[in-house]
Amino acid sequence: MRIAPSSEDFLSDFQTMSTFGATGNGGVDRQAASPADAEQRNWFRSLLESHGLKVKYDQIGNEWGLLESIPGAPFVVVGSHMDSQPTAGKYDGAFGVLAAAHAAFRLQTDWENDVRPTPKYNIAVVNWFNEEGSRFKPSMMGSSVYTAKLPLEDALDVTDSRGITVRAALDEHGFRSGWEGPKAASCAEIHVEQGRTMERDGVSIGLVHSNWAANKYEFVVHGEQAHAGSAIIQDRRDALLGASMLVVAAREIANAFPGVVHTSVGQLDVYPNSPVVVPSRVSLLLDLRSADESALRDADAMLHQRVADIEIEANIKVERRTSHAWPVTPYQPEGVELSAKIAADLGLSHQPVMTLAGHDSTNMKDLVKTVMLFVPSVEGVSHNEAEYTRDEDLVAGVDMLTEVVSRLANGELDD
Amino acid sequence: MRIAPSSEDFLSDFQTMSTFGATGNGGVDRQAASPADAEQRNWFRSLLESHGLKVKYDQIGNEWGLLESIPGAPFVVVGSHMDSQPTAGKYDGAFGVLAAAHAAFRLQTDWENDVRPTPKYNIAVVNWFNEEGSRFKPSMMGSSVYTAKLPLEDALDVTDSRGITVRAALDEHGFRSGWEGPKAASCAEIHVEQGRTMERDGVSIGLVHSNWAANKYEFVVHGEQAHAGSAIIQDRRDALLGASMLVVAAREIANAFPGVVHTSVGQLDVYPNSPVVVPSRVSLLLDLRSADESALRDADAMLHQRVADIEIEANIKVERRTSHAWPVTPYQPEGVELSAKIAADLGLSHQPVMTLAGHDSTNMKDLVKTVMLFVPSVEGVSHNEAEYTRDEDLVAGVDMLTEVVSRLANGELDD
Repeated sequence: MRIAPSSEDFLSDFQTMSTFGATGNGGVDRQAASPADAEQRNWFRSLLESHGLKVKYDQIGNEWGLLESIPGAPFVVVGSHMDSQPTAGKYDGAFGVLAAAHAAFRLQTDWENDVRPTPKYNIAVVNWFNEEGSRFKPSMMGSSVYTAKLPLEDALDVTDSRGITVRAALDEHGFRSGWEGPKAASCAEIHVEQGRTMERDGVSIGLVHSNWAANKYEFVVHGEQAHAGSAIIQDRRDALLGASMLVVAAREIANAFPGVVHTSVGQLDVYPNSPVVVPSRVSLLLDLRSADESALRDADAMLHQRVADIEIEANIKVERRTSHAWPVTPYQPEGVELSAKIAADLGLSHQPVMTLAGHDSTNMKDLVKTVMLFVPSVEGVSHNEAEYTRDEDLVAGVDMLTEVVSRLANGELDD
Repeated sequence: MRIAPSSEDFLSDFQTMSTFGATGNGGVDRQAASPADAEQRNWFRSLLESHGLKVKYDQIGNEWGLLESIPGAPFVVVGSHMDSQPTAGKYDGAFGVLAAAHAAFRLQTDWENDVRPTPKYNIAVVNWFNEEGSRFKPSMMGSSVYTAKLPLEDALDVTDSRGITVRAALDEHGFRSGWEGPKAASCAEIHVEQGRTMERDGVSIGLVHSNWAANKYEFVVHGEQAHAGSAIIQDRRDALLGASMLVVAAREIANAFPGVVHTSVGQLDVYPNSPVVVPSRVSLLLDLRSADESALRDADAMLHQRVADIEIEANIKVERRTSHAWPVTPYQPEGVELSAKIAADLGLSHQPVMTLAGHDSTNMKDLVKTVMLFVPSVEGVSHNEAEYTRDEDLVAGVDMLTEVVSRLANGELDD
């Protein structure tokens, strides 16, 4: 008789998992298809196979562990991502992938031991490729291709800063095939919150009902090269000055909508970036996010007014090269409702939450009914080596996810 | 009988010279010890040798063309640099090196033909290594080592952004020996102005009497990584916001001293520079320059006050990692006086000027008596592919430099 892995087994596996790309400060650095990411993927493959799951890579390098109890039936897709930002926390994504695997291991045992009724659907544990987007843009690449939001060839042609394509990076490790992935019946993902609301309210399980709206811009500021010492100040067309004014303006806009609008510039590149040259070109990625679409529209209008002002003040031109926007979109309310019932049954405190960050489930919810769960994160620290979630919360999350996947596998969200 | 190259020969050689690393927009890209720089150095070696000069490389890769008419006597060092910024103008540095070579060719002919009296000193034409400092820091590396301001081993150990050392870059092309370079008796350099004063005043020859004072800082802004979407605004310690406020503050300080203080940030690097991560570290190079040392002190005090304010406003810490400062320093007044007489004799309009930019002659003047000359630059455009100086001004500059070197070789500035 098969024995399901325990919570202690989960924590032990999670500890092993956190050694891949460990930074020495409690964090990890596992950018997509890097040596650390590859090493971890191979370890995860062994883990899945040791529990009898069949491991396959699809056309964009998503790593799948298939538990096919009902031959030919569609799959409940459950997972997250194991790639990370540089110098990131160890929970972000990785927790969700391992939780998915352990949920599958437990259900498999229960099904084999007739503890639970035979399900309607199979389970596909997934480790989505390149969710973070730090090495290859855009983020959520694996789930975007799987859900046909991003053409496969476009994704494979993307290059990193050294000119290496996604295609070459995946092929280097044998992480790519011609397969499109399994047919999904529904989806579940669990993740750390990356915010403070659950910690503040003292709840164990967050039931994600929708995501914040976002407007994302790539601005290119065009100035003119000049000698950084000798050029007369009023003659200068300093692209870095213009870009810096944009960064400051972004924060001022957030301050104008306290708690309602979040803004950020995470990436900024200067050309020619030489100590004695006034920069001629600066590109930067600027995001506005809000749960309130009307506030987002107002913030966006402020931004565009500031861009026009800065063009005059700094004597530069701002090009809006690409932009990407999404509205507030709901996860299926019946999934939130089902999860609330399950959490109550398990005796776990819970509340509805929104997600500010994007997740692979954000893509999946447009394809199939999708349940997104959060566990709390201490002080909301995220994309930082100090990210921390208590073991008891991780364990509660695995229990919760197991039950959700069980109910999805029973077809409880079917129309 | 040897015939000296004409002004047309000079312009023709300059045209050839401008093909090395040509960018297609009238500019050049010849960073230190790059393939284009190496190609041009080899061409220059051939040019010098074809006129009978002996070419040697010293311990830091300065390229010397020795015209030793008086065996054992010290040398008038005359030259500039052929390396460039990325996407730079073709005159900056290169004009001065070729002008030095042609001055030597002309004097050599005159001496052989007894048109001028036998000199007291020899001539060493020099192409200083890595004046620009864009690939390897600091700038003015070759003249700094020659004048013992920078230890040789420190310079050789400097790496570029790909980790290649100066030592390896020079050795790749055979541009290094154990030689310390020739013994200098005096020095002359000619350069394009990189400013507008001579054009405005309609003069052909600028007699540089001193350089602007400068305070150069490397600031490192320390924040904390966080998720660029989800982290609460008031929790953020955004290093890029702090850095951007510093860039804006630098311009505000220049505006507070109109025409008197120049400020700039040419280089700024963001870590981890990922679209969805609040940056934890930004390093930047910030310069303050002025001809007025008291204004520079006031500007510097303003900067340090702003740094303290920004630390609070942006919730970050600013580390002042390295700084480099120099006062207003004069070129020897007797050199300026001699040059004024020579320009008058040649019928060339002339006036005293200051240099805002640093030059290799700034180092040399602390070792030996040094004459620094400028020719005008249209609209003062510098470190830009559109940099332009009229042929007639170039030709006048070569005539002027020839006469200055002749008088220096006669020992006219000797005590």
